[in-house]
Amino acid sequence: MRVADLPTPALLVDVDAVDANLADMAAALPGPRMRPHVKAHKTTALAARQADVGHPGFTCATVREVEGMAAAGLGEDLLLANEVLDTRRLGRLVRDGSARVTVAIDSEPTLRAAVDGGVREVLVDVNVGLPRCGIAPERTGWLADRARAAGLTVRGVMGYEGHLMMLPDVAERARLTRECMERLLAAHADVGGDVVSGGGSGTWDMNTWVTELQAGSYALMDTAYSAAGLPFRQALTVLATVVSATDATADMPAFAVADVGLKSLGMDHGNPTVVGGQVWFCSDEHTTFGPEVPVAVGDRVTVLPAHVDPTVALHERMHLVRGTGPDAEVLDTWAVDLRGW
Amino acid sequence: MRVADLPTPALLVDVDAVDANLADMAAALPGPRMRPHVKAHKTTALAARQADVGHPGFTCATVREVEGMAAAGLGEDLLLANEVLDTRRLGRLVRDGSARVTVAIDSEPTLRAAVDGGVREVLVDVNVGLPRCGIAPERTGWLADRARAAGLTVRGVMGYEGHLMMLPDVAERARLTRECMERLLAAHADVGGDVVSGGGSGTWDMNTWVTELQAGSYALMDTAYSAAGLPFRQALTVLATVVSATDATADMPAFAVADVGLKSLGMDHGNPTVVGGQVWFCSDEHTTFGPEVPVAVGDRVTVLPAHVDPTVALHERMHLVRGTGPDAEVLDTWAVDLRGW
Repeated sequence: MRVADLPTPALLVDVDAVDANLADMAAALPGPRMRPHVKAHKTTALAARQADVGHPGFTCATVREVEGMAAAGLGEDLLLANEVLDTRRLGRLVRDGSARVTVAIDSEPTLRAAVDGGVREVLVDVNVGLPRCGIAPERTGWLADRARAAGLTVRGVMGYEGHLMMLPDVAERARLTRECMERLLAAHADVGGDVVSGGGSGTWDMNTWVTELQAGSYALMDTAYSAAGLPFRQALTVLATVVSATDATADMPAFAVADVGLKSLGMDHGNPTVVGGQVWFCSDEHTTFGPEVPVAVGDRVTVLPAHVDPTVALHERMHLVRGTGPDAEVLDTWAVDLRGW
Repeated sequence: MRVADLPTPALLVDVDAVDANLADMAAALPGPRMRPHVKAHKTTALAARQADVGHPGFTCATVREVEGMAAAGLGEDLLLANEVLDTRRLGRLVRDGSARVTVAIDSEPTLRAAVDGGVREVLVDVNVGLPRCGIAPERTGWLADRARAAGLTVRGVMGYEGHLMMLPDVAERARLTRECMERLLAAHADVGGDVVSGGGSGTWDMNTWVTELQAGSYALMDTAYSAAGLPFRQALTVLATVVSATDATADMPAFAVADVGLKSLGMDHGNPTVVGGQVWFCSDEHTTFGPEVPVAVGDRVTVLPAHVDPTVALHERMHLVRGTGPDAEVLDTWAVDLRGW
């Protein structure tokens, strides 16, 4: 099959770009130094490719992601880097031996949930500066003691400096990452264990303190992370079709409409980029743009999403392609099989 | 089942609110005067409720929506109010008698696509002022003639004043709606046919020119439309669980984290509203908010999405509930079965 044969909107993954991204990251952070985050692609076929370059463990954000990874045979070491109050579905995976599951805890109720659901291994989630989940560093020792007293294995700590990922000043990003990781290491001294987990695509080359990096976006990339100066290639695009085109009038320049919109693009980081056009606005199933060269109804256009994570969550599948343009070959079609909760 | 038993995040539909919304609209625009737009809820079970209050026809935005409505036995009169370049799946529905399908056209290629795919009925889509799809009013007669010459039945015109829906000044909204509809009626005079289709939830009570209104959001509502002064009730909420809570410190007020975020909320209209809290920011699976009263880990919170359409597109199901709070009864669970393309 060729790209020209695909119905639109369609997620396209450039095989050479994604493989280069995976290889570059695996060269820098080989094997267990990198724990890829599946929330950025929600696709077990792509996770399998990350396992193929040597990463044995994965990071998940939802129970569904953990279940799907286990079902795909990728359950060697799954970290649910999130707080969960009902861990029964996770406990089932542990009991039937289909996955090793570690869950984050940051409070007595999340500790209790791990015990009640049958999860046996935890990380203490530390607030390193992002106001989200995580216990204050000075209270981590207390929580670790409580967890061990309850029979849990505490593998170590995690802390995510998510508020720094997009900081444009790279030197400042590095300085603040050090501050955050000093908090995480202080907590680790109190908690113990082998694991110091954290970081993301935006701090992949400057977070040298974690024992494992939780990056996700590096695999497929988006325009927000590209603007943050990451060296990884834009591997994910959305293929769209021009469904309407209007010539310039006295009142308005020419514009065209592609069949991609709020239902096929994550919009929290703003508008997408249309290659060869300037985006005016997005509607549910449309993006109106000013074309830089004339376009005709039926033309295909390439759209770059601003934020990869919520974009993939809107699609049932992604197509692995080699090359560009309508004659590019579709090598495979992957189900986005980790959606939902 | 009670609401307390649902895993989160979960879409809840207040049965009394949605039924009141449907009844109020059906009283104002009974039967075929209203052609509900399914893109706002993507749920055939809810469409069936709209059929139950008397609306025989529906508006769709995608081929998948048309197919799903036909499969659900709701294909009496389906309008795909969008331009499509591959209508073969629509043509199959026409041939096998499972639906009456009318498609919008605004150009020679979309006209040709209708003929080639086996669709027999069309509306001429008119640009009434929103720079999106639609042919210029003065060219509609030409396109209608071309369509009839090609063997198509031209049922009339459609034109969507989408740029006016959220205009805060209601009098100005009404004045500009009149201007847009004058363009549509001029086009109708050139095109002929019985149908003048247009309008939306934001102009439901002021667009008195169309023969059928294409409103969708009125059924479930969202905070953006509520702010626009519509009388319909907020029927859709997202149930979330507090998974982390942090006490105030010298540097930062208290905050809490709910398990709802960019993967469960349409974000193009901005942040959601958390009942009883002030939203700080949303992440993939989290919303950090400042609670107005103390909250504890495990508490349930109610979240109102800013934009209903892309919110439902992220969920597999919605739960029909009666009452509020954890003891509210779950009457039914509906599949959001019109997602994708």
